Amino acid sequence: MRQEDPVATPGEADAMRRAIELAARGMGSTSPNPVVGAVILDAHGEIAGEGWHQQAGGPHAEVHALRAAGDAARGGTAVVTLEPCNHTGRTGPCAQALIAAGVSRVVYAVADPTPAATGGGATLAAAGIDVESGLLEAEAARGNEVWLTAAREQRPFVLWKYASTLDGRIAAADGTSRWISSAASRADVHRLRAESDAVVVGSGTLRADDPHLAVRGVEGTFTQPLRVVVDTNAKITPGARVLDGTAPTLVAVAEDTDTAHLPGVDVARLPRTGSGVSVPGLLAELYGRGVRSVLLEGGPTLAGAFVAAGAVDKVVGYLAPALLGAGPAALGDAGITTIAHALRLDVAEIERIGPDLRITAYPSRTEEN
Amino acid sequence: MRQEDPVATPGEADAMRRAIELAARGMGSTSPNPVVGAVILDAHGEIAGEGWHQQAGGPHAEVHALRAAGDAARGGTAVVTLEPCNHTGRTGPCAQALIAAGVSRVVYAVADPTPAATGGGATLAAAGIDVESGLLEAEAARGNEVWLTAAREQRPFVLWKYASTLDGRIAAADGTSRWISSAASRADVHRLRAESDAVVVGSGTLRADDPHLAVRGVEGTFTQPLRVVVDTNAKITPGARVLDGTAPTLVAVAEDTDTAHLPGVDVARLPRTGSGVSVPGLLAELYGRGVRSVLLEGGPTLAGAFVAAGAVDKVVGYLAPALLGAGPAALGDAGITTIAHALRLDVAEIERIGPDLRITAYPSRTEEN
Repeated sequence: MRQEDPVATPGEADAMRRAIELAARGMGSTSPNPVVGAVILDAHGEIAGEGWHQQAGGPHAEVHALRAAGDAARGGTAVVTLEPCNHTGRTGPCAQALIAAGVSRVVYAVADPTPAATGGGATLAAAGIDVESGLLEAEAARGNEVWLTAAREQRPFVLWKYASTLDGRIAAADGTSRWISSAASRADVHRLRAESDAVVVGSGTLRADDPHLAVRGVEGTFTQPLRVVVDTNAKITPGARVLDGTAPTLVAVAEDTDTAHLPGVDVARLPRTGSGVSVPGLLAELYGRGVRSVLLEGGPTLAGAFVAAGAVDKVVGYLAPALLGAGPAALGDAGITTIAHALRLDVAEIERIGPDLRITAYPSRTEEN
Repeated sequence: MRQEDPVATPGEADAMRRAIELAARGMGSTSPNPVVGAVILDAHGEIAGEGWHQQAGGPHAEVHALRAAGDAARGGTAVVTLEPCNHTGRTGPCAQALIAAGVSRVVYAVADPTPAATGGGATLAAAGIDVESGLLEAEAARGNEVWLTAAREQRPFVLWKYASTLDGRIAAADGTSRWISSAASRADVHRLRAESDAVVVGSGTLRADDPHLAVRGVEGTFTQPLRVVVDTNAKITPGARVLDGTAPTLVAVAEDTDTAHLPGVDVARLPRTGSGVSVPGLLAELYGRGVRSVLLEGGPTLAGAFVAAGAVDKVVGYLAPALLGAGPAALGDAGITTIAHALRLDVAEIERIGPDLRITAYPSRTEEN
């Protein structure tokens, strides 16, 4: 971690805030790349160009911003949310583009942790450019939490989403659950899906809800996420809605499961653990398929297995202001038997979504009580 | 309900807001009376005196405010949160005091619904005073929700309080629960207790926690609430902490229960219903003892019985940002078996209390989804 605060002007801080906003526009279409935003300030500190990484395979944020700035970039400052890349992938290295454009200073928020791309800052400095890192690092890192977590853990970032009553029920005693949460909350979930590479449910949810899992009603550019059903014993039937052609679907089964009744279905065979399949095995399979973000939509059994595996990076709970007093709970057995071992979270945000509350939280780094 | 907006000056509206604040100072010490605040404006519209009802048996808010105003009340306006009383109880009727002081106008927020005290507005008008009602009625009614509900329902107002994890658990699988919620939330509960006439728990909580239930650590004037244990079959032992001398305690048992092992303990005998005692019977017993507000502290079985009886007027949930995946739920069987019959709530407030969330909600008047 950085020891000193970065040296930056107020104008550069404003530009970084803007770059973080721009970066967010790429959410859902840049995977497996990060989201990145860039602002070019001219020699007088005025905004000369803006850009963001719009989709994997397309130009990087810096290239968009430099194109917008044109000659005004010369002698100016590039403000970027992520360390400019140093490698030639599908596009040329951004460090070289910045040098060629004649910028005299580069300010970035977060260092690039990937072995292939790192070193952009050093390359820029070696070319005589003034380089500053760490400006608004925490905010920028949060905006790139998916990509940074995936790079660090070498598995997809997992967001567990649930919708429950205030007393923690996801359905009534008779199994009815339409609708616990409001139309506004359900629309919000479609946005989460659109921002994810894969949506994962277990066989209990499959059986109870016959979910479709595709994104509906979201405007703008996004890629339909991979629909993943964790179905240890392949109980899914060929007529399940999730097997339609709207988006690709993967059925994850135990390695010894017979799937002869599912011709043409994309099946992943995973190690058994207990009564299910290995969560790390599932995540490795998905990572190998390019998935960097998983929206875990339930149900309680699968969510419990993910919590037990330490594989929940973020929690978004939609709490409907209602009480049931009976019915299944949002989270099933996670191997936690005593209060001292509860998974403690830090609440990052509380929003009202229609009549519901949306609580966004992250597992705490340190245990506390 | 009123058909037209009340006619009031901005100065009177400001004075009513102030009066509502003043009224709240009486919370916890006026029962079985309402909380009331009063502001006297002189003939020029300037604040000449303030007062609030401080405790049952003491002077009413109007009397305090008139004393503070002295001669400045003559020709002025009295702004009061509740219709001035018309009856002579332990103190004289406020309507007469206002007439005697020579005010020319009275503005009140909420009409007095009680047969004995009502008619103050008419008495004032008959004396030639200009009377206006309904100014900031909703805000003032909320501040007096306990007294108004008790007057309307002829039973105590019931606030159900619970503390759970985000996934709705009040304890871990092994029964440990100290502490699910933070020290800040526990201190906040003591404030709720101090504002209540009685604190009620069931035998399950008694057995699990051996609670003390008295108020600790709250500053200012309050009366220790009556501690009530709903213990159908009188399983409580004479050494229970709740039976110490800190505050009075009532043990509610079924009418046919043997309580010979509890000499000197105040016992209420109530009709049996199912495996417990009648909730309406309990509330009638408490109302007869002067209790106007009940803080229902649990556990899930008793809370379920109150919800089933339609006897929860307000819900305050402390949600700890933690996940357990197992353990008892906050709310037990309330006779709700299908989602359409869920008890829908309206969320009035969301506050962060230390690391926890405090959600304040009221049962919805209308069903919606």
